[in-house]
Amino acid sequence: MFYEFKFKDDLPAYIQVKDYLKRLMIRGSLQADQKLPSTRELGLQLAVSRNTVITAYAELKEDGFVYTVQGKGSYVAASAPLGGVAPSYDIDWQSRINGYARQAVELDRMKHGIRADKSVISFTSIAPDEKLFDLDNVKRAFLDRIAMEGGVLLNYGYAKGYKPLIDYLMKYMKQKGVDLRGKDMLITSGFTEAFDIVMSALRKKDGNSVICENPTHYAAIKNLRLNGFDITGVPMERDGIILAELERVLTERSYNFAYFIPSYHNPTGIVTSPGKRQAIMQLMARHRIPVIEDGFNEELRYSGSHVSPLIASAGQGNAVIYMGSFSKVLFPGLRVGWVLADHQLIDYLESIKRARSIHTSTLDQAVLFQYLYNGNLEKFLKKARKEYKRKYEWTKHCCETYLPFKRLSGDGGLHLFVEFDESFDTTKLLIECSSKGVIFTPGDMFYTDGGGRHSLRLGFSRVPDENISKGLEIIGQTAKKLMG
Amino acid sequence: MFYEFKFKDDLPAYIQVKDYLKRLMIRGSLQADQKLPSTRELGLQLAVSRNTVITAYAELKEDGFVYTVQGKGSYVAASAPLGGVAPSYDIDWQSRINGYARQAVELDRMKHGIRADKSVISFTSIAPDEKLFDLDNVKRAFLDRIAMEGGVLLNYGYAKGYKPLIDYLMKYMKQKGVDLRGKDMLITSGFTEAFDIVMSALRKKDGNSVICENPTHYAAIKNLRLNGFDITGVPMERDGIILAELERVLTERSYNFAYFIPSYHNPTGIVTSPGKRQAIMQLMARHRIPVIEDGFNEELRYSGSHVSPLIASAGQGNAVIYMGSFSKVLFPGLRVGWVLADHQLIDYLESIKRARSIHTSTLDQAVLFQYLYNGNLEKFLKKARKEYKRKYEWTKHCCETYLPFKRLSGDGGLHLFVEFDESFDTTKLLIECSSKGVIFTPGDMFYTDGGGRHSLRLGFSRVPDENISKGLEIIGQTAKKLMG
Repeated sequence: MFYEFKFKDDLPAYIQVKDYLKRLMIRGSLQADQKLPSTRELGLQLAVSRNTVITAYAELKEDGFVYTVQGKGSYVAASAPLGGVAPSYDIDWQSRINGYARQAVELDRMKHGIRADKSVISFTSIAPDEKLFDLDNVKRAFLDRIAMEGGVLLNYGYAKGYKPLIDYLMKYMKQKGVDLRGKDMLITSGFTEAFDIVMSALRKKDGNSVICENPTHYAAIKNLRLNGFDITGVPMERDGIILAELERVLTERSYNFAYFIPSYHNPTGIVTSPGKRQAIMQLMARHRIPVIEDGFNEELRYSGSHVSPLIASAGQGNAVIYMGSFSKVLFPGLRVGWVLADHQLIDYLESIKRARSIHTSTLDQAVLFQYLYNGNLEKFLKKARKEYKRKYEWTKHCCETYLPFKRLSGDGGLHLFVEFDESFDTTKLLIECSSKGVIFTPGDMFYTDGGGRHSLRLGFSRVPDENISKGLEIIGQTAKKLMG
Repeated sequence: MFYEFKFKDDLPAYIQVKDYLKRLMIRGSLQADQKLPSTRELGLQLAVSRNTVITAYAELKEDGFVYTVQGKGSYVAASAPLGGVAPSYDIDWQSRINGYARQAVELDRMKHGIRADKSVISFTSIAPDEKLFDLDNVKRAFLDRIAMEGGVLLNYGYAKGYKPLIDYLMKYMKQKGVDLRGKDMLITSGFTEAFDIVMSALRKKDGNSVICENPTHYAAIKNLRLNGFDITGVPMERDGIILAELERVLTERSYNFAYFIPSYHNPTGIVTSPGKRQAIMQLMARHRIPVIEDGFNEELRYSGSHVSPLIASAGQGNAVIYMGSFSKVLFPGLRVGWVLADHQLIDYLESIKRARSIHTSTLDQAVLFQYLYNGNLEKFLKKARKEYKRKYEWTKHCCETYLPFKRLSGDGGLHLFVEFDESFDTTKLLIECSSKGVIFTPGDMFYTDGGGRHSLRLGFSRVPDENISKGLEIIGQTAKKLMG
């Protein structure tokens, strides 16, 4: 007995002894009511000090694994391990799982994509470049806030969100021209949770349908499908959705809502023009269709005029549900998004949020708030925009140099969208390029109707300059070869 | 013009000027292509330095609100505000909202409870006392981790969870006697999200039903109802669920799964005895019913033997889905929970997690991991248990002194459960006590069958000693008066 004990250097000795004895009890090598060796004896056997064993025994007693008998010594507690006593049985989970879970795996692109090791040049990410993050200001925000609020920051908060952050973001949205009267805000764990919560409030028992741009954000397509929505995608042109087509599909059936990404659209990078925004909202008003506006990329404007969000152009109307996030600029690892909408609607969404996840991390919200409050956003945006703009222009230049494209779009943000001749297949291109160490996102996943096999998305934010040119040269050469 | 500008002390002057001008543009007081005053002129008018105005103009240009004409000056950008141009329309959200959203509000006790101001003695919370939190160690964990990982900590992570935390928690569960073979782990944003995700994978189109203890955790009842489950509650006795009754209901119909809280049960505080745990698992095995085990309070044992979780007693079997959380001991504001279960099942749950909220806050996970890794849990538990045990005993003593109860239960944790004579109504008691400045949670909300009107839950973790005795004296006197 006790001969397998191996001393490691990186943990206090008493913890190692305690864990070792626990393991023996759990696997039954030490039985209930068995007397343990004296502390002196075990110390000698394990080659640790007697004091170490005394501390380990005390902790085991504290944890209910050991009891002591006055004057006699320490014993293994009776009820410790149950392992092996109750019958072990198996469930065939494949047969218990429902269609929703199955579809969630099927639509989970992260599980079906090509895995890239570090040597691969990958254009698949549209996450911000963490090298730009100003960690010192994040640290300061954390320490400032914890000094002010103390332990409250680590205790339960409110489903609706962290009050100082809500106040800040309401002002922030007001500055974008939003009329806040009759509106309220819910903080969520990012855009995706916001979208999922809103869908679960607005879907009906059956016959659910939605209008959106085609192509559009894959996570939105996925969640709409998972929630049983029919998706009507309206094609895009240079300055946004094609209006005539939008008008046509609006007369065809009714829709639960429309979902639009008016600024730096994912995946095309298109900014819907101010005139088109107005026209879209006029059509929505005529058909009384609620609009979900995805403002995910709004902060990443490199040039051109400021464009107001749809919710601003809706004035006092309550029909637009705006979903915001700083995940493409600031810190996606802090899971914070917000929904700005009619106050009655927010009241429902708040209860759904509470039912599903109680509330969004108080720490994330508080650190983000203090970071914003300390005035870091403007400074950071200036730096980030400058760097991303440079990269954007470099990527565009390389695309124009190397790629045999038909159309190249992207007015800002962290990605460009490339369309080849309709007959070209970017999935085949990906297989070829991948064997040469370059990967990208084939465009078909963003299409609502199975189209887009001739397109691809290039995320450039995390690719070093020399790899951008090298990667695009390889993609270009391979594409030309495939085109024959 | 410009006469409403009011200078505040707490913000840099250029930001105030910039914000002020933005507001004027958004509400249309400054029109597109209108020339702005020279920087000198505006500085004089607003009583700020000319440099302040120069900086404000530069930022407005950067943000796309202003353009400059060489040699002429600064102008308001054309497309800035759309407000008021598109027609504003209203949606009647009440008619768009579905039954799920409506029920979420109905079942949202936070919206229907009695609001307590600071002078009220409130026994409603079972959150930990934040005064016990060792903030210095949390700060150290944060700084340690950010020093090691840098910006990666603030960028996107993995749906499955933060790898070092998963590794740590797998070991932690192994030490509780769990056979990890064939099992895997998913990190969630707390227990509630874990439960919601598992339910959405296991519910069928119709005819969903579940067995649980009666009474049980309210958030579980709420989410089961929201997801259309029939709930069969099995009454409790001193050492856990009544086995004969469990056996009876098992023969009556089939169940999607069972939901149990074997340790420091909410709301009764009962610890299911080792023998009963075995017997329960034997019955579950016989009927091949999956078990969701809620380990939420497991760490708060003050006395008695260590008791293994059900998933440990299931050995190599894959039928138990264990949901863990430190929210009742450590920091509920960090929204972190975990699901330990069959690896094939976890694979499905991971995709659902990704679809719903991408991943749990990396910051929360990393801070929690480093806090645990630095060896703080054991130290903190020792301190917390000592303090909560003292409070638990004091509360129990006061209950015994003042309350005319029939049954008092609670073997640990942060609450006690009181049952009066069956004919007594604690909702009436609450109304009376509330007018005397004392509130608690009436027990009926925890019952699956409309029962429990004679019971109440007392959370003591955040009530000062003198208020515990004062509050319980008032509850006792009022109860006796009502009993006549």
